[in-house]
Amino acid sequence: MLKVGVVGATGYAGEEVIKILVNHKDVSITELQAVIDKEEPFSSIFPAFKGKVDIMCKSPDPETMAKNCDLVFLGLPHKISMELVPVFLKAGKIVVDLSADYRLAPDVYKLWYGIEHKDKGNLPKAVYGLPEVYHDEIKKAKLIANPGCYPTSAILGIAPMLKEKAINTDYIVVDSKSGVTGAGRKPDLALSFSEVNENLKAYKVNEHQHKPEINKILSEVAGKSIEIVFTPHLIPMNRGILSTIYLKLNKPLDTKAVIEIYKKFYKGKPFVRISDEGKLPQIRDIVLTNYCDIGLKVTGDTLIVISCIDNLKKGAAGQAVQNMNIICGFNETEGLM
Amino acid sequence: MLKVGVVGATGYAGEEVIKILVNHKDVSITELQAVIDKEEPFSSIFPAFKGKVDIMCKSPDPETMAKNCDLVFLGLPHKISMELVPVFLKAGKIVVDLSADYRLAPDVYKLWYGIEHKDKGNLPKAVYGLPEVYHDEIKKAKLIANPGCYPTSAILGIAPMLKEKAINTDYIVVDSKSGVTGAGRKPDLALSFSEVNENLKAYKVNEHQHKPEINKILSEVAGKSIEIVFTPHLIPMNRGILSTIYLKLNKPLDTKAVIEIYKKFYKGKPFVRISDEGKLPQIRDIVLTNYCDIGLKVTGDTLIVISCIDNLKKGAAGQAVQNMNIICGFNETEGLM
Amino acid sequence: MLKVGVVGATGYAGEEVIKILVNHKDVSITELQAVIDKEEPFSSIFPAFKGKVDIMCKSPDPETMAKNCDLVFLGLPHKISMELVPVFLKAGKIVVDLSADYRLAPDVYKLWYGIEHKDKGNLPKAVYGLPEVYHDEIKKAKLIANPGCYPTSAILGIAPMLKEKAINTDYIVVDSKSGVTGAGRKPDLALSFSEVNENLKAYKVNEHQHKPEINKILSEVAGKSIEIVFTPHLIPMNRGILSTIYLKLNKPLDTKAVIEIYKKFYKGKPFVRISDEGKLPQIRDIVLTNYCDIGLKVTGDTLIVISCIDNLKKGAAGQAVQNMNIICGFNETEGLM
Amino acid sequence: MLKVGVVGATGYAGEEVIKILVNHKDVSITELQAVIDKEEPFSSIFPAFKGKVDIMCKSPDPETMAKNCDLVFLGLPHKISMELVPVFLKAGKIVVDLSADYRLAPDVYKLWYGIEHKDKGNLPKAVYGLPEVYHDEIKKAKLIANPGCYPTSAILGIAPMLKEKAINTDYIVVDSKSGVTGAGRKPDLALSFSEVNENLKAYKVNEHQHKPEINKILSEVAGKSIEIVFTPHLIPMNRGILSTIYLKLNKPLDTKAVIEIYKKFYKGKPFVRISDEGKLPQIRDIVLTNYCDIGLKVTGDTLIVISCIDNLKKGAAGQAVQNMNIICGFNETEGLM
Repeated sequence: MLKVGVVGATGYAGEEVIKILVNHKDVSITELQAVIDKEEPFSSIFPAFKGKVDIMCKSPDPETMAKNCDLVFLGLPHKISMELVPVFLKAGKIVVDLSADYRLAPDVYKLWYGIEHKDKGNLPKAVYGLPEVYHDEIKKAKLIANPGCYPTSAILGIAPMLKEKAINTDYIVVDSKSGVTGAGRKPDLALSFSEVNENLKAYKVNEHQHKPEINKILSEVAGKSIEIVFTPHLIPMNRGILSTIYLKLNKPLDTKAVIEIYKKFYKGKPFVRISDEGKLPQIRDIVLTNYCDIGLKVTGDTLIVISCIDNLKKGAAGQAVQNMNIICGFNETEGLM
Repeated sequence: MLKVGVVGATGYAGEEVIKILVNHKDVSITELQAVIDKEEPFSSIFPAFKGKVDIMCKSPDPETMAKNCDLVFLGLPHKISMELVPVFLKAGKIVVDLSADYRLAPDVYKLWYGIEHKDKGNLPKAVYGLPEVYHDEIKKAKLIANPGCYPTSAILGIAPMLKEKAINTDYIVVDSKSGVTGAGRKPDLALSFSEVNENLKAYKVNEHQHKPEINKILSEVAGKSIEIVFTPHLIPMNRGILSTIYLKLNKPLDTKAVIEIYKKFYKGKPFVRISDEGKLPQIRDIVLTNYCDIGLKVTGDTLIVISCIDNLKKGAAGQAVQNMNIICGFNETEGLM
Repeated sequence: MLKVGVVGATGYAGEEVIKILVNHKDVSITELQAVIDKEEPFSSIFPAFKGKVDIMCKSPDPETMAKNCDLVFLGLPHKISMELVPVFLKAGKIVVDLSADYRLAPDVYKLWYGIEHKDKGNLPKAVYGLPEVYHDEIKKAKLIANPGCYPTSAILGIAPMLKEKAINTDYIVVDSKSGVTGAGRKPDLALSFSEVNENLKAYKVNEHQHKPEINKILSEVAGKSIEIVFTPHLIPMNRGILSTIYLKLNKPLDTKAVIEIYKKFYKGKPFVRISDEGKLPQIRDIVLTNYCDIGLKVTGDTLIVISCIDNLKKGAAGQAVQNMNIICGFNETEGLM
Repeated sequence: MLKVGVVGATGYAGEEVIKILVNHKDVSITELQAVIDKEEPFSSIFPAFKGKVDIMCKSPDPETMAKNCDLVFLGLPHKISMELVPVFLKAGKIVVDLSADYRLAPDVYKLWYGIEHKDKGNLPKAVYGLPEVYHDEIKKAKLIANPGCYPTSAILGIAPMLKEKAINTDYIVVDSKSGVTGAGRKPDLALSFSEVNENLKAYKVNEHQHKPEINKILSEVAGKSIEIVFTPHLIPMNRGILSTIYLKLNKPLDTKAVIEIYKKFYKGKPFVRISDEGKLPQIRDIVLTNYCDIGLKVTGDTLIVISCIDNLKKGAAGQAVQNMNIICGFNETEGLM
């Protein structure tokens, strides 16, 4: 049994990791930590876990965490992960970091997150944990930069066409709609029920910090520099991201041909499902699962891609566990079906 | 034109008062104040008011407020109103206080709100602003203690039967369900969308600070001490309170007879509507209006009362304006239809 | 492997049964039937089941169902189940009926459901499938009348006090709040999003067809005739029932003592959790689980009980599987944790 | 006082027209008709109108309607309006038709709505009721084809740039998000609360019947044929449309310059508000109002436009009344502020 710990256990992503691990046959949860007012059993904070996860949730203490675990999930706000990661790596532990701290080059990180990166030494060791693209690298990784939720839905929706060199790379439009848990668990007037319910807004239009992350990975896939147009929207629902992606074909392809390209690209990938022609995925098809469902429709020389994930599963905790499974040689879908 | 100001203009109740006053033919809004980061036009904070309320929203300054207004609405958290009220009263202004500060006797206030009342001198002058019960007193008032949202729905649902001495006064159960704006506009994890949506809970069971307020007024109506059982619940919707009230009849009455009692009690009251036999009100009937809709059903010796209001209208801002209308000799329904 | 079938596979309860069975180690799903426009793979109707439940969903055909299954779940509207049950029982199959058809005596059934019962012969064989009360009877049953959602939450919240003879049996008030899936999957204007969202209503006040079911079982538990007052409410959320129950103590008991009574009553019952003193359950604690969480608070001689279940799990499909587990000698919690 | 009637009074748009007319000083509602089970006072069907609109709601009868009214609003499904319009026009009445029946050329109508147009004689007389574009034509109209909700938000968001010839007309992407009332009031499983809530989907991708309407009007504005890419989405909220529009600039312009273009285009138009640089509108800014709020952001050579309306106000009933106001010489904003 792999001994696993979670720092940031009380955030949405941390809680979701724990929810998955409870039913994972190869691991045992040995240490939970979070910034909390008082240490108490995890099931006292979240009564839903009564009888299942009754171990103490303690204040952050990296040394104890390192001592008690083989692998650590970090469900922390960015800027904080990079202060803890060196401790765990030095102790020989595997780290799956759900924050943005190890996803970008240091100069881009500084530009978008506003501060100098504090762990440039370990940064090059980080592997971007998108198994459908970087499976081999993940297998050997000690440090996973677990992808952001928007990037997961966007990259999985675009990568096959880039690989196929079948689209105009100059004008890629990603219009994403996200549920509210994507913003994390925190007191924030803008996230309060009365402000979000019966409302809808675009925010950080083409300025969201996930944009450089998407650009970076798409550029790697394309083998050339890609710059997308990206508009995220906040939707009055708890979970889920649906990205509507507009691509310009650079050669004539019909919907059927495009579907074949995607099916080929995702062959053998257990968590990506391509919709049949004439059908499109919706949030209810993937909510509470680790699937990314992708629907495709060609109209003229435009390809419209609908890419759906649960932001807390494939967009965060589920993907994190998928990465752990790959690194540790477990069944890739263990705990996730 | 009556010159009117609002302190706490950016809270839900304050904003709602302003929304009503914009269409009120007898008043002009001359001063808006709130605890804000920087002073800017009210319509910059709330773009919905663009072209309608473009005057500055300033930081609280009671002297300026008193100088520029004839009547002041206070949409402030309790404990703060009582620090400002003396200034306005001393300057000869009329005050409609939407907080709980002037609704209870000082000893009860201390018990439920945890601190000594700071304006005991003016407390006896305050009139409880429930026009359907205290219309004559309101007419002559200088200081209105505007009722709480739960009390408005509960008292209007029970008062006719108490007046009629037709119910057992020993066991009155009020089971109330409220939308989220009832809790005010503030960053609070418990009020965040992801916590409230797809959830439902009872809270402060029989310990809510509105209970002594309901008890006090019902006791005045009954002419004897009344102690209710009160459970509030938080519902995933923005606006509205529906109280389901269980009363024991002390003499045989059918639904028709009970409806007559309520119709008689509310005769000439423009904002209370009694449902026909066999019909019951729901939130959509009264949302965004100043109505209290009451439905009645007798089953055996139990009377079930369904009392619905919009918590920000009849439960706060609408009732506050109704009180102003009565005090100032305007049409009681002006701005509210 | 037990061969299991579902009639009414496309309703909310049927779909939920299937969702549970997918992860149940002792059964295989061999036959799915529903009233549908055309027969197609279950995963074509519900893409979420792609790769998991790809067998055909066929039109109802009891003989084929009986031939292919050892046990049949009926997720049908009432009045229809009783036409199919005789076929399955005659063929020696076990039936778990999620409708109301076998829950009431024939005269009461006729009174509340408006038609003569069509299978009076099998009616006496039906066991009310509430394992916390009728575990021994369920073990030997061939036909389970699976409890309604409201009755499950109400009975589990009241039974311990009746058993203890600690409450006044003359005045039991059950104020229940339900999510919308409780009404089933069907086109109905009253259940449309625009009518339910931002709304709240009481309905069938003290006239809901679940009332006689609650009365019947509580009377059996109490050993005397019980008649409750029952008001159901429709809440704008998908899943969950929270019942707020008002009981009059007939002897002095504090909250701690009451908690002991409930803990004793539910000792060894894996799906009922009693909240610690000072804590109360909410929907988020039990949603998507088979738990019934019960919170208790004594105030004067009134006991307020908060009883929460997921209406599709413990209130329908989860309880149905729990009953199957007991009948078939599986682990009672198999597939449900 | 203009005598006004509504056919389809019980639909969302019809109800909204009535809600507006109640507060309109120049009209009186003299006739209400709808397909209903039994004729009863409008306020019995919608208790919210008690004491305000108590006249009978009757079954459709064009002759009576024509006799009792000077102007008729038709809030009917498409295909039905065109059967009634000739009666009203022949009787010399003014008609504001909220359906799609008079918005398209007959061949395009047939292509998208599947049947031959039944009133080709009157079709050329219809004026597209978008006052910000066709004000002069509306003034003289007898028959208004009131615009669809999506088209209103899309056209108002794009027209200024087309007029200015400042964008590439080959690739216009409109990604629209709509609340559920946009689909009308009807029993429909796909619109039921449990299906829509906590869900999100694209539908009729680039095949929505509002696409040819948008194309037609944009082509008229541009003076050349325009073909957009259009994806509508269903959002779990009652009201509001937010369209995110992606345009390619054909000459270098910054956000400030673009804002000037829009301000110039909408100068003197009371219901279009252009957001200041750096600000973007959201649904809460315009819900329950007749405003269209437009936010603009240039990034590289891409212009992102956020266009928000309330689908039942500016997207239907509000715009219909605005058209009436213009035709009848009332103040354009009467009843709408």
